[in-house]
Amino acid sequence: MAELGKKLFFDPRISKSGFISCNSCHNLSMGGTDNIQSSIGHKWNQGPINAPTVLNSSLNLAQFWDGRAKDLQEQAGGPIANPGEMGFTHELAVGVLQSIPGYVTEYQQVFGSGKIDIDGVTKAIATFEETLVTPNSRFDKWLLGDDSALSNDELAGYTLFKQSGCVACHNGSAVGGNSYQKMGMVAPYKTASKAEGRFAVTGKESDRLKFKVPTLRNVELTYPYFHDGGAATLMEAVDIMGRVQLGKQFTNEEKMKIVAFLKTLTGEQPSFMLPILPPSSDTTLRPAPFE
Amino acid sequence: MAELGKKLFFDPRISKSGFISCNSCHNLSMGGTDNIQSSIGHKWNQGPINAPTVLNSSLNLAQFWDGRAKDLQEQAGGPIANPGEMGFTHELAVGVLQSIPGYVTEYQQVFGSGKIDIDGVTKAIATFEETLVTPNSRFDKWLLGDDSALSNDELAGYTLFKQSGCVACHNGSAVGGNSYQKMGMVAPYKTASKAEGRFAVTGKESDRLKFKVPTLRNVELTYPYFHDGGAATLMEAVDIMGRVQLGKQFTNEEKMKIVAFLKTLTGEQPSFMLPILPPSSDTTLRPAPFE
Repeated sequence: MAELGKKLFFDPRISKSGFISCNSCHNLSMGGTDNIQSSIGHKWNQGPINAPTVLNSSLNLAQFWDGRAKDLQEQAGGPIANPGEMGFTHELAVGVLQSIPGYVTEYQQVFGSGKIDIDGVTKAIATFEETLVTPNSRFDKWLLGDDSALSNDELAGYTLFKQSGCVACHNGSAVGGNSYQKMGMVAPYKTASKAEGRFAVTGKESDRLKFKVPTLRNVELTYPYFHDGGAATLMEAVDIMGRVQLGKQFTNEEKMKIVAFLKTLTGEQPSFMLPILPPSSDTTLRPAPFE
Repeated sequence: MAELGKKLFFDPRISKSGFISCNSCHNLSMGGTDNIQSSIGHKWNQGPINAPTVLNSSLNLAQFWDGRAKDLQEQAGGPIANPGEMGFTHELAVGVLQSIPGYVTEYQQVFGSGKIDIDGVTKAIATFEETLVTPNSRFDKWLLGDDSALSNDELAGYTLFKQSGCVACHNGSAVGGNSYQKMGMVAPYKTASKAEGRFAVTGKESDRLKFKVPTLRNVELTYPYFHDGGAATLMEAVDIMGRVQLGKQFTNEEKMKIVAFLKTLTGEQPSFMLPILPPSSDTTLRPAPFE
């Protein structure tokens, strides 16, 4: 199922244009993100929010910045049918896949039926995404007892990370991803973004500007930072977090040490063969990028 | 050098948007093409021509449909600086790469100097592209003496392919790619495309609508067909080629047999690990997709 999901993750034919795949914005060559402030969607639409990394996303308490999808399977269906992302419909995407003999055969092997449906498609994608964990970061090695895995500056950064209060939200196996917190807890966060956070899901005023705390694993690779991609570098991100979440102005030296620690959270990146996709058939609906 | 070129081939940071890589339009999961009639470029620009496959492209007598680049290295520089493709400049692309420590180290190892220039970048990309050959198609196996590699219909298609005259242009190790020929030799080819073919390079009236004959290797995967992507299926492509190049109306049965033969030209697709790209640094120029 994960192998089928890997192909689907890389297949742009589940977008209206035939150009945008899951991997376009969650690029597994680049930390599972697009490294763009807000993503590019169908017809070059500017997305409203920064694409979170798909790496270790199975460890999140829910999906999307506002947690509106309860799990990876529910998330996977979102972009396909979002007019500003892949611009397609579930029905058309399933129809495209059903017309591709290679997918029908593989789907039959996985699900026991050659009748493709969106539940199976998103389940396969989610199953692939569950494999996208990044073990053996230097920090993990240090936790397991390898004293030489971290330098003195990195260890000092870890101490600052704990003592300053970062760890209050960035904790657990993903170093984040397990709670919603208000962006701008002690001072307002200035942004042009219209994203309302958790409020958009619950309608509760107290949830306004509450976002899912992102994982810090591989944070070295997942720039730019925050829901609006407003911080270009880790130095900037640490500075802003200190001020608006902790009421603390870190010195340059403190920031450098915390950043040094954060870079120890880069794990082994997903390692697999580039998938080769089964060809369309004569009856496959053709991409319509310019309609 | 090929390993460095592979990373560059997959790296969207050599485009202005940070979104388009060589692999966007020459997708190695999809026969080295985008399977779109004409490609999508910077800001969703509609390209003027169908993206040819990068597979076996080192066997072409020259690059691009009109042969305006003498080799793969010259070709590789084109899209980077084309405003309607990657929308960048060579200077800015080189500047981005120079700001990425992982690339500087690797470039130093390959070229003996850490000072990146566009010649090295395009040479590395071309060297990677030279590895993208697709051996061991069923037709190759049959040529080498494996009588069971082709079915009777496929063999009948091969006979038709030779006797009808297709082989006059589609010959040699790439089954094409080694001459320019007029599109519409015996009857005019109807198209909305403004591409002038070889005339755009030589200015000679006799070169108008002369295009490089495409390779037929992996043609099963490289739909849609012709310089304008005007034929969606192989059946349609064979029909049109028969009429406008050979003055021949193939029967349905003949077309099916020729198509069956063409599908035996699918070789082993490139097989390698998805490259992991080195992260940007704090000084790397950020993508500007919406400026």
